[in-house]
Amino acid sequence: MSVTAAAGFEAAGVEAGLRSGPGPDVALVVNRGPSASAAAVFTSNRCTANPIMWSKQVITDGVVSAIVLNAGGANCYTGMLGFQTTHETAEAAGRALDLSPGDVLVCSTGLIGEQLDSTKMVSAVGRAAEALSADGGERAARAIMTTDTRPKQAVRTGGGWTIGGMAKGAGMLAPGLATMLVVITTDADLESADLDAALRTATRVTFDRLDSDGCMSTNDQVTLLASGASGVAPDLAAFTAALTDLCRDLVVQLQSDAEGAAHDVTIEVRSAASEEDAVEVARAIARSNLFKAAVFGNDPNWGRVLAAVGTTSAAFDPFGIDVAMNGVRVCRAGQPDQPRDLVDLTDRAVSVVVDLHAGLDAATLWTNDLTHDYVHENSAYSS
Amino acid sequence: MSVTAAAGFEAAGVEAGLRSGPGPDVALVVNRGPSASAAAVFTSNRCTANPIMWSKQVITDGVVSAIVLNAGGANCYTGMLGFQTTHETAEAAGRALDLSPGDVLVCSTGLIGEQLDSTKMVSAVGRAAEALSADGGERAARAIMTTDTRPKQAVRTGGGWTIGGMAKGAGMLAPGLATMLVVITTDADLESADLDAALRTATRVTFDRLDSDGCMSTNDQVTLLASGASGVAPDLAAFTAALTDLCRDLVVQLQSDAEGAAHDVTIEVRSAASEEDAVEVARAIARSNLFKAAVFGNDPNWGRVLAAVGTTSAAFDPFGIDVAMNGVRVCRAGQPDQPRDLVDLTDRAVSVVVDLHAGLDAATLWTNDLTHDYVHENSAYSS
Repeated sequence: MSVTAAAGFEAAGVEAGLRSGPGPDVALVVNRGPSASAAAVFTSNRCTANPIMWSKQVITDGVVSAIVLNAGGANCYTGMLGFQTTHETAEAAGRALDLSPGDVLVCSTGLIGEQLDSTKMVSAVGRAAEALSADGGERAARAIMTTDTRPKQAVRTGGGWTIGGMAKGAGMLAPGLATMLVVITTDADLESADLDAALRTATRVTFDRLDSDGCMSTNDQVTLLASGASGVAPDLAAFTAALTDLCRDLVVQLQSDAEGAAHDVTIEVRSAASEEDAVEVARAIARSNLFKAAVFGNDPNWGRVLAAVGTTSAAFDPFGIDVAMNGVRVCRAGQPDQPRDLVDLTDRAVSVVVDLHAGLDAATLWTNDLTHDYVHENSAYSS
Repeated sequence: MSVTAAAGFEAAGVEAGLRSGPGPDVALVVNRGPSASAAAVFTSNRCTANPIMWSKQVITDGVVSAIVLNAGGANCYTGMLGFQTTHETAEAAGRALDLSPGDVLVCSTGLIGEQLDSTKMVSAVGRAAEALSADGGERAARAIMTTDTRPKQAVRTGGGWTIGGMAKGAGMLAPGLATMLVVITTDADLESADLDAALRTATRVTFDRLDSDGCMSTNDQVTLLASGASGVAPDLAAFTAALTDLCRDLVVQLQSDAEGAAHDVTIEVRSAASEEDAVEVARAIARSNLFKAAVFGNDPNWGRVLAAVGTTSAAFDPFGIDVAMNGVRVCRAGQPDQPRDLVDLTDRAVSVVVDLHAGLDAATLWTNDLTHDYVHENSAYSS
């Protein structure tokens, strides 16, 4: 299901031979209409990949008919030759589907600084176009996996309309966005501007708050395509709520499959002076290697939480902070409270709640622990 | 040697029983004068330990006669009781040495959020005062070790004057400052204001640019004490240069003994529009877990360098950046240059040079790789 759950979409996943192992590595998702409205958000990394540069141009008119995604190479920092490969990929999709290359988005993921094989890409796009089907969502979701161990898919429905999405990402999960490629489709009848507003609202509190390892990708892209095939123009607030819920579902799936992770950590910062403060504090904790290593060791080392909080510019009194881990308040007003031995961190799910006592705002951020397996997987990726 | 290399200083290291294992864990350094000028810089973490709060008051008049340092407990987030322990430590030193507690600095290092045993501290300070000697520098340097595997000491001399220093720190090595306690002594005859200027100049380009794991400590303190015992008032520029050189020596010692590290990485950013830009870019690279894990795996994954550079606000053209690793220029103007296979990362020393082609400024930052041993050591520290 996923990207083919909504009416009007077909998808396929084929093997191009781009990745070192076997399996599908090129996905194609096509919007059969009647509408071709679209919106997309991109990584905020200033060093961006060729497909990002291409896709940013394609999305400007809010019209997208197809999207090609590949694993096995990021096509980033590959110069003019790399950009040409992206361009040829879009042209191949245009030829095969009889549409303008300027309406084809391209997404790539994999190693930075290596050329993608243009011939293999073009050939794979042609075969993918022939393999398109209304139940191809699952195969497409598998084709974009890199170090992911399982595909990530989610579906939500409203009054007569459906949203479906697929995501990939296991490392470089960090804000603006996390290292992910995400395609979301809907048969709702919505204009590009409405899709854009809904997508930005949803990603701001979901994908932007997944911070697995603090490393920002060069290739992130979240795309929302609308076919209008349901004939229903939904209430935008209801649609946005369902979209946000679907994005949160995908975020949790990404978090639970993060490279080498042994714990899924939810960090909630309460009573902040502003939402920005809450996010800043949560992110500082999520990026503390010492805190993350302690969680891996099932060690409720709350001092490392406070040491991270202290690096931020958020409003707080250092002696007005409470910290709870898995429901045990280990620190109250900057002093030891319940014994840390009461905290049981053996479950995969870990909750950290920091109360700043500085205001009325709050934010939740998702991260993982720092493990031997994370180091192992990321010390031998390109070789 | 180290802190007793300069005339006018005595030191001792004794066993207080604060740490779990055997060995000295309380150090005392005393300035016998004739001068008692001093300067100190502190962690910029807003969540600071009790000894930091105490020492910031002590240093305000620029007069310090003694400094007490302990391993086995950070005395951080331990509330009023913890502050009282720091106060009693200074009073015990004052009694034993017949000087004002207000002229005694206190430094602590260890686990956050646990009370330090005040009785043990007071007793140890008394014994340390009796054990003071002009060759006690080595024992003092050993007493402040935590997960350090060896003491860090350095000595420099000028025209008739000497500077000696000791440092501890193996984890939480990050800016403002790195997780360290450092005591530097000199027999030069300099006023507190001059010591302060020299110390800030030196730490800005040394300790502030050691970023082993991105985690900022709650307890960092670098102290410079001057006895004036040489009778020589050195040229301040010459003194500052020697002090900077000594600090850089200690930084390299700290880097080479960082918890679990397998590589010592020197990151040099050249042709930046400003020194701040150069430091920001170098720090972003030093804090990329993906880059650090790749170095551990001897993998010259330069794409992870660029992905980190792209997260900064420094001035650069993404397609005007060169990257060299161990002398091999793997990226030129944002495109692959020499094959990454030519880069040999098997040695412990790794050099990364990033040329932004954006200006005339430069900065060097020291970091380490991310290893299994780092995760292991930091996942089982408090338990």
